[in-house]
Amino acid sequence: MKQLGEVFEFSAIGVVRTPFKDRFGVPRQPGLAAQAKGVIKINPDPDLKTALRSLEEFTHIWIVFVFHDHGGKGWKPSIRPPRLGGNRKVGVLASRSPHRPNPIGLSAVLVEKIDFDAEGGPEIHIGGVDLVDGTPVLDIKPYIAYADSIPQASAGWASAPIPRYPVIFSDEAENEILKRDPQGKQNLRALIVDVMELDPRPAFQKRQNPVTDSASWGQRYGIDVLGNDVKYELRESGLYVYDVQDLKK
Amino acid sequence: MKQLGEVFEFSAIGVVRTPFKDRFGVPRQPGLAAQAKGVIKINPDPDLKTALRSLEEFTHIWIVFVFHDHGGKGWKPSIRPPRLGGNRKVGVLASRSPHRPNPIGLSAVLVEKIDFDAEGGPEIHIGGVDLVDGTPVLDIKPYIAYADSIPQASAGWASAPIPRYPVIFSDEAENEILKRDPQGKQNLRALIVDVMELDPRPAFQKRQNPVTDSASWGQRYGIDVLGNDVKYELRESGLYVYDVQDLKK
Repeated sequence: MKQLGEVFEFSAIGVVRTPFKDRFGVPRQPGLAAQAKGVIKINPDPDLKTALRSLEEFTHIWIVFVFHDHGGKGWKPSIRPPRLGGNRKVGVLASRSPHRPNPIGLSAVLVEKIDFDAEGGPEIHIGGVDLVDGTPVLDIKPYIAYADSIPQASAGWASAPIPRYPVIFSDEAENEILKRDPQGKQNLRALIVDVMELDPRPAFQKRQNPVTDSASWGQRYGIDVLGNDVKYELRESGLYVYDVQDLKK
Repeated sequence: MKQLGEVFEFSAIGVVRTPFKDRFGVPRQPGLAAQAKGVIKINPDPDLKTALRSLEEFTHIWIVFVFHDHGGKGWKPSIRPPRLGGNRKVGVLASRSPHRPNPIGLSAVLVEKIDFDAEGGPEIHIGGVDLVDGTPVLDIKPYIAYADSIPQASAGWASAPIPRYPVIFSDEAENEILKRDPQGKQNLRALIVDVMELDPRPAFQKRQNPVTDSASWGQRYGIDVLGNDVKYELRESGLYVYDVQDLKK
């Protein structure tokens, strides 16, 4: 990265473990909440364990993390938000895109429990996670509603409604989901809907082959949801999940 | 700082300019809003100017910054929140204290205007600032209410009510304030109240000499508010501002 000013060094205090191995499978719906679970694995250091004391009293925390997939790639001054259909460019600092001058991310998650004495270092069990597995953590802060919650804040371009598409399942897909998550403990079906209704394809694919364009209908894709390869086809009616298979490595 | 994990390097994209030269004069009241104003001075780089495009559409932004006063001092695993009267220790990661493993801070502020073509680099004029002058900025993100605002989040120890003390002015102090801010453009009087009612003394002084302890009454302090030396005395009735003087350098 080009140096922009005074340089600071930070070191990871832990790593986020999630079922999302690939960023296109990460739920981008905020408030997806409890369905997408993960663990912040804190490095085994007695001082860090002490530093977490009383954190269990908070319902929500901020994770300050590194967009590690983008570390070496440099940053882009402007991006095309997928939400705007790729039709408009905005500055990267006016977005939450990972391709920022300093690839630092911010995510508010739910604290489910903290296991201070887990083997290999404390574990913070979290819900509502939108992070890729392996994300390095720089800081954790309690979410303090009277300072952090500004419900009346209004968002320029980001207030455009997020397009959502119907997600339809074939009988075969329904059966596969039942077989893979028989008691519904993983909420696999709900998670597939949450991930898919926003059209999880990379931005350039969304631009080139919009769901609503008849020329796209019939095109097939696969996406990893909790280690399952969810096969779907673009149709006039929306995203049609025709099968759920084992992920080929 | 002791290395805790993988190391990352970030460089400042700008600096926050505020009237607060000293961290004890910084309003710690969240939502103090428009009264405490500042400017984020972005480094003069054409890419950074582009990166800010469309940011003016948002009412609020996050500043991701460095607690620069604490860079070299290392971090403390636990702290005594002033709010709890110094009677209880909590882990530093369960607090918003600057003495963190990675001294990264987070502050949501109001965007008043953006001057993209200011001399020496773009300027983001902000309100509701709680940052010390000279704070290095690592990142700016739009505040997006549907993701960032969690009004129902509840805060363990931090939900203890913040003690506030009455602030009383002598006639002399009132006259000085009128003289220094005749049209009230700086909101000097309101800002003094906002800063002082929370008892802006360092934590150890608050612990040793609580406002409510009769042994503290009569003790005198001075605090810098917008470059004015606000002289006050602890009294049974609260914080008594007896004079406002020029700051001695």
